[in-house]
Amino acid sequence: MSEFDLIRRHLTGVGAGRDDVLVDVGDDCALLRVPPGRELAVGIDTLVAGVHFLPDCDPAALGWKSLAVNLSDLAAVGAEPAWATLALTLPEADAGWVAAFARGFGELAAAEDVRLVGGDLTRGPLTITVQAHGLVPADHALRRSGARPGDLICVSGALGDAGLALRHLSAGEPVDDYLRRRLERPTPRVALGEMLRDIATSAIDLSDGLIADLGHVLAASGCAARLDLERVPMADQVAAVVAERDDWALPLASGDDYELCFTLPRAAACRLPVLGAAAGCPLTIIGDIEAGSGLRCVRANGSLWRPSGGGYDHFRRDD
Amino acid sequence: MSEFDLIRRHLTGVGAGRDDVLVDVGDDCALLRVPPGRELAVGIDTLVAGVHFLPDCDPAALGWKSLAVNLSDLAAVGAEPAWATLALTLPEADAGWVAAFARGFGELAAAEDVRLVGGDLTRGPLTITVQAHGLVPADHALRRSGARPGDLICVSGALGDAGLALRHLSAGEPVDDYLRRRLERPTPRVALGEMLRDIATSAIDLSDGLIADLGHVLAASGCAARLDLERVPMADQVAAVVAERDDWALPLASGDDYELCFTLPRAAACRLPVLGAAAGCPLTIIGDIEAGSGLRCVRANGSLWRPSGGGYDHFRRDD
Repeated sequence: MSEFDLIRRHLTGVGAGRDDVLVDVGDDCALLRVPPGRELAVGIDTLVAGVHFLPDCDPAALGWKSLAVNLSDLAAVGAEPAWATLALTLPEADAGWVAAFARGFGELAAAEDVRLVGGDLTRGPLTITVQAHGLVPADHALRRSGARPGDLICVSGALGDAGLALRHLSAGEPVDDYLRRRLERPTPRVALGEMLRDIATSAIDLSDGLIADLGHVLAASGCAARLDLERVPMADQVAAVVAERDDWALPLASGDDYELCFTLPRAAACRLPVLGAAAGCPLTIIGDIEAGSGLRCVRANGSLWRPSGGGYDHFRRDD
Repeated sequence: MSEFDLIRRHLTGVGAGRDDVLVDVGDDCALLRVPPGRELAVGIDTLVAGVHFLPDCDPAALGWKSLAVNLSDLAAVGAEPAWATLALTLPEADAGWVAAFARGFGELAAAEDVRLVGGDLTRGPLTITVQAHGLVPADHALRRSGARPGDLICVSGALGDAGLALRHLSAGEPVDDYLRRRLERPTPRVALGEMLRDIATSAIDLSDGLIADLGHVLAASGCAARLDLERVPMADQVAAVVAERDDWALPLASGDDYELCFTLPRAAACRLPVLGAAAGCPLTIIGDIEAGSGLRCVRANGSLWRPSGGGYDHFRRDD
């Protein structure tokens, strides 16, 4: 048995137990059954060592996160996760590293009932590409394009945690457990996404930061927005940095939040507390959709905050 | 508009014109419609610069090949290609390179009616991951596991062309147009795969070489095989090397053939010439499935040829 076979063994059977998988890892293709009345939602994301994560990153955390960022995309369209494929490029056959990676990947896969159905293992610079496949009732997927003037803008969880963790790590400073967990093991808001299908008018997941991602919703919907900065939900650690330096870029533009930002009709606001409790995460109204174009970020005193620097260069980070 | 947006523009609309794509590139996920009575076949493959292709490889050829190797996997299960996703990691934003890549990818996508429905563009060492999605009538997919003693072993096209081209390139020698095309722009045997669904008892595509890939079929089917070396189809260039050096590893173990190897009941042999004409490629009977285990390669004079060296190390190449 080659080292390759040893490695592959770690990746076989991850998330077993779905009866809609007819053939999985081992044949040329996986064969999958999409139930009638369901659409297939697919998203693909790559994480590159030195770009999206530090090369010495804990492989179990990396396994978790490489699946999480993809499930977050499924959550944004309201899809129920079903299957994943994994293309893993490794500089050398390191069975211990792969075992830890598979453990982290498998923890989240088990929690969300996702089966690893196929993959490719190649030699080269450490790169991880995952494609997640989900199912959504036909014509009920959430889109970016449905926001309308008068809608409320909401966000799940808290913003800026991963960004602050990354700042600390980059500066060689200690990172507390909460921030590290938010950076390394983000929780994709899968249950929330499914619940929002018939309530929200639009949704997106926050991978590039609220300003950039809400900007995509506004562009797709042909609307403007007003963001009330004092309502943006933040952990104490992030709020302290913002209070000290007026540094709103931390919660609004540092990315890697993997929360959902969604819009909903004003009349649905009363449902948010129950929804949040059911989804297991706080939901906060942070602004309003308006007619026109552009995004205004308004401080508590009524003054406008503007991001410094030019546009966000997607090519420098993930997209 | 950022360089990133310029690059993305080249990749949008590749293979347009399918009405089963509800949302594609641009939202968090693509939304796809699988028709009733069809199973979804998915396969994912990664090509890494310096491992699977030379870094100065023509980007248009690379675009073609990155899709072709995945369509070859679909052909092996008899699936009709439908959609593809592309995760492209580039060291720098090079719009000219991406335009050429997209042109090659798009040529094959158009020829096989494949729509590019999603992707991810990241910065890092040049790596290309493509996932192909195909549709196959429920319970009619070809498998590796159906070969039975008495079946004939067949192969499409000719073997060893890509291997010989790579030898020449690695040695800095000139490569003729035929061999180069076979290495850089392999033709996935999609039409053949679909035609074989109700005829062949098993199938696999040849990416690692006939010995390794037929070995997978024998392992999955629990059978042995006898290969008649004098029947192996080869181009004159490859046949000359074999005749000169008794170097059967070239056609049987150098990989990158992207032909189909399949087994069929002896009674179906009479259908091969018509099938080959319809599929547009020669089909050749090269041996027999037998009871037992193992693969015997028999020369015209009855002597056995044995591959030198140990097993094939998948981790050193693609898998």
